[in-house]
Amino acid sequence: SFGYFGKEPLKEVKLLVCSIDGCLTNGRIYVTEDQKEMVSYDYRDIVGIDLLKKRGIQVRLISERDCSKTLSAMQLGCIAKVSATNKLQVLEDWQKDMGLNWKEVAYLGNEESDVECLKKAGMSGVPADACALAQKAAGYICKSNGGCGAVREFAEHIFLLLEKVNSARKQ
Amino acid sequence: SFGYFGKEPLKEVKLLVCSIDGCLTNGRIYVTEDQKEMVSYDYRDIVGIDLLKKRGIQVRLISERDCSKTLSAMQLGCIAKVSATNKLQVLEDWQKDMGLNWKEVAYLGNEESDVECLKKAGMSGVPADACALAQKAAGYICKSNGGCGAVREFAEHIFLLLEKVNSARKQ
Amino acid sequence: SFGYFGKEPLKEVKLLVCSIDGCLTNGRIYVTEDQKEMVSYDYRDIVGIDLLKKRGIQVRLISERDCSKTLSAMQLGCIAKVSATNKLQVLEDWQKDMGLNWKEVAYLGNEESDVECLKKAGMSGVPADACALAQKAAGYICKSNGGCGAVREFAEHIFLLLEKVNSARKQ
Amino acid sequence: SFGYFGKEPLKEVKLLVCSIDGCLTNGRIYVTEDQKEMVSYDYRDIVGIDLLKKRGIQVRLISERDCSKTLSAMQLGCIAKVSATNKLQVLEDWQKDMGLNWKEVAYLGNEESDVECLKKAGMSGVPADACALAQKAAGYICKSNGGCGAVREFAEHIFLLLEKVNSARKQ
Repeated sequence: SFGYFGKEPLKEVKLLVCSIDGCLTNGRIYVTEDQKEMVSYDYRDIVGIDLLKKRGIQVRLISERDCSKTLSAMQLGCIAKVSATNKLQVLEDWQKDMGLNWKEVAYLGNEESDVECLKKAGMSGVPADACALAQKAAGYICKSNGGCGAVREFAEHIFLLLEKVNSARKQ
Repeated sequence: SFGYFGKEPLKEVKLLVCSIDGCLTNGRIYVTEDQKEMVSYDYRDIVGIDLLKKRGIQVRLISERDCSKTLSAMQLGCIAKVSATNKLQVLEDWQKDMGLNWKEVAYLGNEESDVECLKKAGMSGVPADACALAQKAAGYICKSNGGCGAVREFAEHIFLLLEKVNSARKQ
Repeated sequence: SFGYFGKEPLKEVKLLVCSIDGCLTNGRIYVTEDQKEMVSYDYRDIVGIDLLKKRGIQVRLISERDCSKTLSAMQLGCIAKVSATNKLQVLEDWQKDMGLNWKEVAYLGNEESDVECLKKAGMSGVPADACALAQKAAGYICKSNGGCGAVREFAEHIFLLLEKVNSARKQ
Repeated sequence: SFGYFGKEPLKEVKLLVCSIDGCLTNGRIYVTEDQKEMVSYDYRDIVGIDLLKKRGIQVRLISERDCSKTLSAMQLGCIAKVSATNKLQVLEDWQKDMGLNWKEVAYLGNEESDVECLKKAGMSGVPADACALAQKAAGYICKSNGGCGAVREFAEHIFLLLEKVNSARKQ
């Protein structure tokens, strides 16, 4: 084996921040005639979040929408910031709290409002159906659409990279 | 740069009228056994509507169905006309109220009932899954299906065209 | 014009019978944790049913399931038979009531339980995602999946054929 | 006819065990703002379960999630084990109860937690959108996605194989 010579620098991911609408969900919002809201997620992505936690990578969620009610119904046990008008600021606050640098942060986003975070994060990904600007800013484009396994796929991409890093270090 | 020589005449879009079922929504209507109705929309399209408003383009919604309850649940803050038996008449009333000519109106529709409006509007678009007659009448056919980003895509098409117009004018 | 020389005999369609689960709906049944059921349909198919009625073709619905509650929530104004263990018998009863022969009946089905009706009806169609046996038995295979425009597409197929018949008769 | 020379040994399937999230359902979980959960299934798969029962093959369901409420809403009349932390153990218990060996058990799964069961079962299948490890472990990969006819397709695969076995035995 020749070790790890990928384009991305060796890194330790300690935190994955995931945008809610369009990444954890497919961005589809259901409304009933009695004014109730509903969203959906894919169980594969929940498995992905569990796999991340087991490997010691914290998962936090972010949204510019106020989706607190449906989010709490998901019972994911993740710290989340909703109604976030400035996502970059939220990430910087979280980094300070956790004592992390950008290289230790992975980010999964899909919207124009995610572009800055995608550019700064040590690892960045977008679902296959992310907007053009977000795709351009991200290091990894998932084959899965948002809300349909993109979180799981990005998690497995992170694991693969970390394995390469570890095996390179052992050389 | 050689300025703007597109087929469509230079124009200022001041109003986008969007059909609800099949454009803003995917046309799918959910019904529960306790006789409640539910519809869904894509958060990307809401971002598109916000981008239009920020650029000074008003967005109004129209439907031949009585979808008032689910529409109000969407909290879009757009003027809307539901149960519209004659969409062309509604558009003409709105134009009169707002003092607009047809060149200043963009229209996104998908059904036979949208054909006349599509033909008259200064800019016209259909989702990828619009009916054949509507596709024929429209100037722009979205890659996105109705309720799955078509409003957003049509908004970005409008922005692109307006930018070309502006850059042509500056020459 | 050389008149109508299609493989199917000239006919007058007076009744379209449409299977509910998998044709009018996409066969997807939603269940809530408080034991409520929900189904969905495509507004395009409702437009198709309206177009059929306007042309004097009655539309009736049939299901082997007891979907009476969700069906009544759809407010389609169509005669329907649910919990139908023998669809062929139901059709024969309807024919007798309406004084129709098989050539005047069109049938849209998707399941093994629809095969006999598909074989007997003057015109027969299946959605693109119908089961293999139903596809084999039908005269027309829609490009649309069940619950996603198949009823509309089959309606337009019927109109096209009736037009050809009429124009052939005028020769 | 030259009898049955397939790679899989001749067998009698007496029990099909099917994973719930991602096989019977599409793995999509809907949550409302009043903290209710909803899932969906495809009526074709219910027809498939009925066909299996008619041929004397028992169908049991398994999930690592606690999906008991939505499952009971489906009214499938199948024995089920939810919150199963060790699926293999559950299957071994069921085998003992029913007096079956592994060759008499068919298994449809889609997740890493299904891999052991897929490897041990006499017949094994995965939906088209199963995770990579599950696909590798399974004998049959459905063309249908989970929750969209995979159970029905796997049932028909079983019937086809049993027919071949029977016709081979008659030689």
